[in-house]
Amino acid sequence: MDAAMNLAITQGDPAGIGPEIIVAGWKEIVTVTSANPIVFGHPEILRKAATLRKVDLTVVESNDFSTQASANVLPCVNVVDDSALRIAYGQIDACAGKAAYDAIDSSIEAVKAGRAAAIITAPIQKEAMNLAGYHYPGHTELLAEKCGVSDFAMMLYLGAGTSLKGKDGLAVVHVTLHTAMRNVFDEITVESVLQKSRLIHEFMSKIKRSQPRIGVCSLNPHAGENGLFGDEEIRILRPAVELARQEGLDIDGPFPADTIMVQAQNGRFDAVVAMFHDQGHIALKLLGLNRAVNITLGLPIIRTSVAHGTAFDLAGKGLADPGSLVEAVRVAFRLASFR
Amino acid sequence: MDAAMNLAITQGDPAGIGPEIIVAGWKEIVTVTSANPIVFGHPEILRKAATLRKVDLTVVESNDFSTQASANVLPCVNVVDDSALRIAYGQIDACAGKAAYDAIDSSIEAVKAGRAAAIITAPIQKEAMNLAGYHYPGHTELLAEKCGVSDFAMMLYLGAGTSLKGKDGLAVVHVTLHTAMRNVFDEITVESVLQKSRLIHEFMSKIKRSQPRIGVCSLNPHAGENGLFGDEEIRILRPAVELARQEGLDIDGPFPADTIMVQAQNGRFDAVVAMFHDQGHIALKLLGLNRAVNITLGLPIIRTSVAHGTAFDLAGKGLADPGSLVEAVRVAFRLASFR
Repeated sequence: MDAAMNLAITQGDPAGIGPEIIVAGWKEIVTVTSANPIVFGHPEILRKAATLRKVDLTVVESNDFSTQASANVLPCVNVVDDSALRIAYGQIDACAGKAAYDAIDSSIEAVKAGRAAAIITAPIQKEAMNLAGYHYPGHTELLAEKCGVSDFAMMLYLGAGTSLKGKDGLAVVHVTLHTAMRNVFDEITVESVLQKSRLIHEFMSKIKRSQPRIGVCSLNPHAGENGLFGDEEIRILRPAVELARQEGLDIDGPFPADTIMVQAQNGRFDAVVAMFHDQGHIALKLLGLNRAVNITLGLPIIRTSVAHGTAFDLAGKGLADPGSLVEAVRVAFRLASFR
Repeated sequence: MDAAMNLAITQGDPAGIGPEIIVAGWKEIVTVTSANPIVFGHPEILRKAATLRKVDLTVVESNDFSTQASANVLPCVNVVDDSALRIAYGQIDACAGKAAYDAIDSSIEAVKAGRAAAIITAPIQKEAMNLAGYHYPGHTELLAEKCGVSDFAMMLYLGAGTSLKGKDGLAVVHVTLHTAMRNVFDEITVESVLQKSRLIHEFMSKIKRSQPRIGVCSLNPHAGENGLFGDEEIRILRPAVELARQEGLDIDGPFPADTIMVQAQNGRFDAVVAMFHDQGHIALKLLGLNRAVNITLGLPIIRTSVAHGTAFDLAGKGLADPGSLVEAVRVAFRLASFR
């Protein structure tokens, strides 16, 4: 690992809690990594956030990546137009959507150019980004397109800690993600379940350094009760688990989603394959409070993120918890160090 | 409250963990209620379970309800055919399904006849009950039919405790329940959301003895992101919440299901209206471990239940935790005492 390795942190939607959790968590961010964290955003927006959070921090515009981060120095690559300075907290605004997009786009370019080893993203507001003309359902899909990959997945990862019994933490990957519930039925196929299982197997093999134990959630309540409440378990999930097992994965299921999450908490599984957004998110947010991290699997670059949204109701009040962001930086640094 | 009040505990599917959690939890069951708990099942099955769990317990056949329960005496109303004695643990068996049905049916009759004040049910296996010719998706629907009600709901309730900040516990009601996920879209209507909201308001008003604060879950991820991922929030959930508010309920939403559960844990809500089975069950099982209780709302009788299933993989091993059953008895007694 290069001691001068940079980690690109995007500022997120300036109307949300992104800028303030960056400055509020900065001291801790600097301690959880020996790499050099650099924020992609606008220095004035970060200064305003530092004032809001009453953090003693010098924000230095550092477009050539030359500034070294410290507990009191936050280097910022200025990639956001000055028009974003008029953005009000808590408002859906095309200008804020453009600012969010520009920070992500620039950070991807920085990683591709070898100037940063990983991207850590603060939350964006998808409607604002849509208004700005960028039509992505979320970060994950935007990153996948920019990297030219179609075989990707959004995963939540919770490191080992008091609420989990497993010593390697718990990863949850989603077969379907930012889509209406009505659409999940078309997207859940033997191939898509198999593909997400492979991706999470690969990720947790790195973290655990041995064969991870994977559990697969059912789509229907009670795992469909042997076909009484839906047949996707019989038609799709059982065959997918069988195929994954034949490929050598230590995988079991489908199990009812409510029981599998309790078993995962108790250390029975290192990784869980969830069928849709809320299955994974309800579990990991309850287990992880502010420690869950969002990781995009299948990209050629390392990207982690906070597991929460822009929290418009909280933005500008100075109360947002930087815990998930700090964890996201810690995990990104760990993954970058493996390379 | 009548000091001689009986509480009817059904034995559940004898191939599952029902009988053994009853005997394993008996000492505690007797201490959490000053009423008289009586098991509806078969004395021999309970004796076998007591031997398995190495519990010093005299099971007394008490078909006239005359035996007083104590830490060492378990009164049993024998309502199960002797053919059930040959049932093996962990097997789906029509005979076990019939035994489970008969215990429920008899306990309902006992309550209707004024011989018991409440029913507490151990888990049943729906496929076994189907094989026996009783076609119900679950306890809830069976009880509703026997009581002739169509306006009912299944609720999970978790009493106050370490994982919850609210002092009145947390109730979660389900708008759709034992149905394939493909069917939830037809069942989620303004009327069904309104009806479940009213039922949970009524329940928590009793528990809290003041106006409960209710939160409504979204169906789609991120509450549909203002229509980007589904329109049920706009078409159905917002109007339902508005109508409920006009009726005087303290209700808010729809909110993303993953964030609402964290807010509920933190004491922001006393009750949550979930759109489907797993939303509520994932949350309460993680929050409550073995303390969540299942309650049927809208019945003319009081019915609580364990929040877990028959656990066929665990049955007969002597390891199943009676915690949820003890809580179910405690809550049933409390509700019966309010009358």
